Amino acid sequence: MKFDELLMIPGPVQVHSRILNAMAKPVIGHRTPEFSEIMKNCTEGLKELFGTEGDVYLISGSGTAGMEAAIASFSKLDRITCIDNGKFGDRLGKIASRYTQVDVLSFEWGKSIDLEEVEKSLENGSQAVAFVHNETSTGILNPAEEIAKIARKHSALVIMDGITSVGGEEVKMDEWGVDVAIVGSQKCLGIPPGLAAVAVNEKAWEFYNEKAPFYLDLAAYRKKLKDWQTPYTPAVPLFAALDEAIKMIREEGLEKRIERHRKLSKAVREWAVNAGLELFPQLNDYSSYSNTVTAIKIPSGVTDKELRGGLKEEYGITISGGQEHLKGKIFRIGTMGNIGKREVIATLAAVEDILTRKGAAVPALNAALEVLS
Amino acid sequence: MKFDELLMIPGPVQVHSRILNAMAKPVIGHRTPEFSEIMKNCTEGLKELFGTEGDVYLISGSGTAGMEAAIASFSKLDRITCIDNGKFGDRLGKIASRYTQVDVLSFEWGKSIDLEEVEKSLENGSQAVAFVHNETSTGILNPAEEIAKIARKHSALVIMDGITSVGGEEVKMDEWGVDVAIVGSQKCLGIPPGLAAVAVNEKAWEFYNEKAPFYLDLAAYRKKLKDWQTPYTPAVPLFAALDEAIKMIREEGLEKRIERHRKLSKAVREWAVNAGLELFPQLNDYSSYSNTVTAIKIPSGVTDKELRGGLKEEYGITISGGQEHLKGKIFRIGTMGNIGKREVIATLAAVEDILTRKGAAVPALNAALEVLS
Repeated sequence: MKFDELLMIPGPVQVHSRILNAMAKPVIGHRTPEFSEIMKNCTEGLKELFGTEGDVYLISGSGTAGMEAAIASFSKLDRITCIDNGKFGDRLGKIASRYTQVDVLSFEWGKSIDLEEVEKSLENGSQAVAFVHNETSTGILNPAEEIAKIARKHSALVIMDGITSVGGEEVKMDEWGVDVAIVGSQKCLGIPPGLAAVAVNEKAWEFYNEKAPFYLDLAAYRKKLKDWQTPYTPAVPLFAALDEAIKMIREEGLEKRIERHRKLSKAVREWAVNAGLELFPQLNDYSSYSNTVTAIKIPSGVTDKELRGGLKEEYGITISGGQEHLKGKIFRIGTMGNIGKREVIATLAAVEDILTRKGAAVPALNAALEVLS
Repeated sequence: MKFDELLMIPGPVQVHSRILNAMAKPVIGHRTPEFSEIMKNCTEGLKELFGTEGDVYLISGSGTAGMEAAIASFSKLDRITCIDNGKFGDRLGKIASRYTQVDVLSFEWGKSIDLEEVEKSLENGSQAVAFVHNETSTGILNPAEEIAKIARKHSALVIMDGITSVGGEEVKMDEWGVDVAIVGSQKCLGIPPGLAAVAVNEKAWEFYNEKAPFYLDLAAYRKKLKDWQTPYTPAVPLFAALDEAIKMIREEGLEKRIERHRKLSKAVREWAVNAGLELFPQLNDYSSYSNTVTAIKIPSGVTDKELRGGLKEEYGITISGGQEHLKGKIFRIGTMGNIGKREVIATLAAVEDILTRKGAAVPALNAALEVLS
């Protein structure tokens, strides 16, 4: 018998039955008051998660579409600084280079970023900073507030990839001084992939570039938002899913939701360290461990295939490996969306079972249970 | 009691329960053999619908995203001819103008295009032609084969918006000489909105422009297709929906499916003419009525609001009005996807009820029934 898969990767996440059922409702026309009501609820809910009074635009597409919409729409500038300490920071730079000059600040994947270099880049005339808040490829939470603070000193535009933080981690765009931020549907919001949202404050429009791609030009989304509509046909079932997800987030309460994400990831970290494993990130004072994904080095005595393949085969649980040059070197456990200690403890027990059989770890479930109870 | 809505608009269409249920299945990871199998079935099924041996790339986004991906990726040319005899032809020109010089050939909305003007534009040095196969804003099927024939004489690239024809109308890309074509998910394929597919033959790559938007750069999709994967996180539930839709199309058979679309639209037209209404398109020898949407002039004695509002209020049926300057002047009935004579006859009876009460039409259901039986 093939069991339903349990997705413990840093997105797409496990989707709650309420959200799956919302998608299976008959499709409604999108140029209707019924759809506008969904748009309104989704937009207003997302504003709370972003911590902004600005607009939020919903794009049918992946998180990458949201990132490109953000960068391309606000690229009327000579130079942008892109911070790269992981796969998604690297992607930011690649996208930005299609629209303007890019000053890439590269740091070793898994290491914290150096704020002095950010300051230096801005002093040298860069007019904007783009960075990833929660770098899922390495399990690091980058210092959003500090980066924005430096940028504000130089009146630079701040673009934040919050794809895997918004909805599961504290994000306070307006308070921090972040001008543009992006979230993806299949991460902490707990719905399937296919939607991105871009939050934008007034300042960003000073940098508006009318040569942005047609589909990703946020001015068209702004115009239509006044009627709670999208400029192009929206992925209706995913909007219905987001509508339900926002209701679930309101029922739980945002603070409690963030606290839950912190607790679940802390349990993973405590288990890992006590099991004799090594966390992948090397933190300095400005960074912290991600609360939505934990990256752990694969111990000697076991291969990536034995670990992740066995987990899927024996337990029907999917976790992630490393990306690019980290393939075979780390594994990653997501703690995002609408999951609880049941899913986390099952995952840790299963990983532990495989690792201890290979002599690659020692039992440490108690350490996780202590955090969770 | 509020009944489920019956969508008889030219997309998004009514979605079959098999497809709704496919979307409600637990989300699977997208970097898995299970997802690749879905990709393979979707891609191979779409190739048959496009009538091509070329590649088909699946993009998470609306039809407009597909159109822009097609135009932007193959825009290494000095000038493109865009044929505009409706809203979507107009949009083609707007998108193309972000990437190259555009020679717009405008014809009155609702009128056929003039092939001599296409020839003239190509003689004047345009290297590509972009056009809409089935123009839903006006209910006209444009002469794809003839346009491609002229373009071939001049070795020009042919880009066809088949968003509302592929899967419900005859499309033979390779035979006709169409190099690039686009379809949208929420039309004749019968699934919800949120996916676009672009079919591409080898010739198109001679025009590849590496400066296409990152998210819409088809080279990235081509690279990943080798492993039956997408470059960015796909909208998994919509891929599951497409997978089921392709199975349903195979069960019905493509020829029978096209025949069904032709019959349903013919029934609408026969009813309209016999009810004393006027079809909106003015055809010449090269065009025909669309088989996926019928545009009819709103007769005097009734307003758009009374007609469409009453239909929704009293019957729970949604049909479309006119777009842009055609607002209030026409109404449109879609005959796309997985619907049959039951839905069409209910819609015509309901429209007839409202119109005859206003003295704006005479009973003519028999004319439709004759076609359908």
